[in-house]
Amino acid sequence: MQRRYFDWAASSPPDGEILARSLKTSLELFGNPSSRHRDGRLAREALENARSRIASVLAVPPKTVLFTSGGTEADQLVILSLLRPSTASVPPPGLLVSAIEHPAVSECAALLARAGRQVSVVRCGRDGRVSPDDLTSAISRAENPRMAAVMAVNNETGAVNDIPALVRAARQARPGLRFHCDAVQAAGKIPLDFAGWDVDSACISAHKFGGPRGFGILYARREFDTLSAGGGQENGMRSGTENLFGALATAETLELYASREVVERNAAGARRLGARLVAALRKFDRCSLIPSDRHDEDGRFVPHILLASFRGIPGEVMARVLDDRGFSVSTGSACASSSDKHPALEAMGIAGKTAFETIRISFGPSTSEEDVDALIRAVEGILKELP
Amino acid sequence: MQRRYFDWAASSPPDGEILARSLKTSLELFGNPSSRHRDGRLAREALENARSRIASVLAVPPKTVLFTSGGTEADQLVILSLLRPSTASVPPPGLLVSAIEHPAVSECAALLARAGRQVSVVRCGRDGRVSPDDLTSAISRAENPRMAAVMAVNNETGAVNDIPALVRAARQARPGLRFHCDAVQAAGKIPLDFAGWDVDSACISAHKFGGPRGFGILYARREFDTLSAGGGQENGMRSGTENLFGALATAETLELYASREVVERNAAGARRLGARLVAALRKFDRCSLIPSDRHDEDGRFVPHILLASFRGIPGEVMARVLDDRGFSVSTGSACASSSDKHPALEAMGIAGKTAFETIRISFGPSTSEEDVDALIRAVEGILKELP
Repeated sequence: MQRRYFDWAASSPPDGEILARSLKTSLELFGNPSSRHRDGRLAREALENARSRIASVLAVPPKTVLFTSGGTEADQLVILSLLRPSTASVPPPGLLVSAIEHPAVSECAALLARAGRQVSVVRCGRDGRVSPDDLTSAISRAENPRMAAVMAVNNETGAVNDIPALVRAARQARPGLRFHCDAVQAAGKIPLDFAGWDVDSACISAHKFGGPRGFGILYARREFDTLSAGGGQENGMRSGTENLFGALATAETLELYASREVVERNAAGARRLGARLVAALRKFDRCSLIPSDRHDEDGRFVPHILLASFRGIPGEVMARVLDDRGFSVSTGSACASSSDKHPALEAMGIAGKTAFETIRISFGPSTSEEDVDALIRAVEGILKELP
Repeated sequence: MQRRYFDWAASSPPDGEILARSLKTSLELFGNPSSRHRDGRLAREALENARSRIASVLAVPPKTVLFTSGGTEADQLVILSLLRPSTASVPPPGLLVSAIEHPAVSECAALLARAGRQVSVVRCGRDGRVSPDDLTSAISRAENPRMAAVMAVNNETGAVNDIPALVRAARQARPGLRFHCDAVQAAGKIPLDFAGWDVDSACISAHKFGGPRGFGILYARREFDTLSAGGGQENGMRSGTENLFGALATAETLELYASREVVERNAAGARRLGARLVAALRKFDRCSLIPSDRHDEDGRFVPHILLASFRGIPGEVMARVLDDRGFSVSTGSACASSSDKHPALEAMGIAGKTAFETIRISFGPSTSEEDVDALIRAVEGILKELP
């Protein structure tokens, strides 16, 4: 049975050719990049070359690009820097996080709260997006806010936040407030422009755009109070022997799948595919899109991620039956702690039965109209069979 | 020019065949292991299979094997758990670290000290080894020690600590004290038996035994107060989408290069090679081994790592000239923060000129007698040329 993959938001199919080629190169350049002999210098050269290529795609200076083991670690490095003793102040530095953040951010916030830091949650609208007014009002209520974290694209709903507008609002409400943006779901879907967005830090994860697992990028405009103590790699901000394979493969997949040019070139096709999916799902009586007013070519959302609920059918059941028929979809985030939770839905005021009946459909650059049509036919069949 | 690599302690040449095969498998199993659809389940199955194989080599239960991005992250997870607010107590929990630890441990200790935690340094003997008496005496002087960290094999000198004896001494001096062992340089050199050693936690790094960069194993007998907040992977102890390629490649290279059987089988050959190197170096007037009483088949050290100083020749110069002639050796740890530092030497009371004139020679399973003889001839030539 041919399988059709609709869970790109959890992980994208990797570009095998790029990964194999990158591995081959890294095997030849096996020296420790911190070693001073020829083997080390060749590895260092390749590593810094990968960093420059990545910086170029992200339109930021190379020295602001830090290699991590993934999006989660990148988020942790930034958010948990508020734990560092050197930031001690009275009252201790506070954090603002949007209500729709991925657990990589929201669980760090919870940890800070347990450590006595003030954590304020920034509400979102009924469409799951965070408005500048919401952020400004949360800042005005916070005691000693040091950092705000708002993601670029939500992993459950596909909602797109206007990060530049949010940064401007934050700077106006509280000059000097640090702004962190988890852009993990944005890579490959909207153009990344961290310097243009004027964020202080942002992160992406390679396996969301055809790259390797276990590799992420942290953009950090300035040094921060890192907890990553050790050998002092990555400019002292992230210790540990560098993963050259990961850096090489990420540079190439980022260029091929997430550069501005590529994203802009693919935009029309993705919109068309998303609209086809939305239009077809809308025709099913028992199907509601989330939010219910999401329309065919709705600029508030990336077309690649779609939440839909089917009246009377638990999402778990719909996902399982689709799986049996060759389609991979999910019920929400693939993270271990949140597979049964829908933080974004809760924040949107959608809980209980509707959330329980929800599936997430997400696609990527190699998804075809034929794939979408096959999925629609499968859903149609299931809706006819299930009471 | 043929190159001969003598910097295995910094990073080992990878097993390209295993890595390529592991990558291929991971490309086919590209689902997110936390996803419930078939793609996710297949990835999960392969991941847990790799975990079981690794656990089997380490002779520990699979659920105590946690995947990390390397040895440094594994050390951080354990040591920085003392920062967690939930461990709050008066006086705050203290840490004991040996004087010869790798920066992955010693820099975490420094960070804890800055956070107001009591950190005690356990001295080592003139041979660079930590004795049970040293540990007991440090414990008796500490205020509220919660954890002790002593490495198994030192990365600068090759000194081997008797971890089981140290653990027994620690348990006797302070029941309930947690014992962490950085075994990064032990893997592939001595048999690993974390359960038998009775440590609470220990870690290894795949690229030290032919495996991939960016992958490490943390053995944790019990849950701990992790700072790794996020999706809750790795039993809640280490968040982030799992790196299947890393796990597969690490399982196979660990079996092939670091299992008890392999280490025991290779032991005689490694001893012979080490003795050959020591005996030849001893013949050079200007050469001193460190410590100076290290002999041909000295059980206090792994044969694979050797420190030697050459009177009147800065280590940097010797390493550079050897590099020009095709030999990769180092002057010390390859970590970015410590390339000019020799913490183990300082702890042994060897500082200044001798430390400055030191090079580290380290070899591995594919190093031949011919390689060693070529290195010796090169050193001989350099000693004749340099004043």
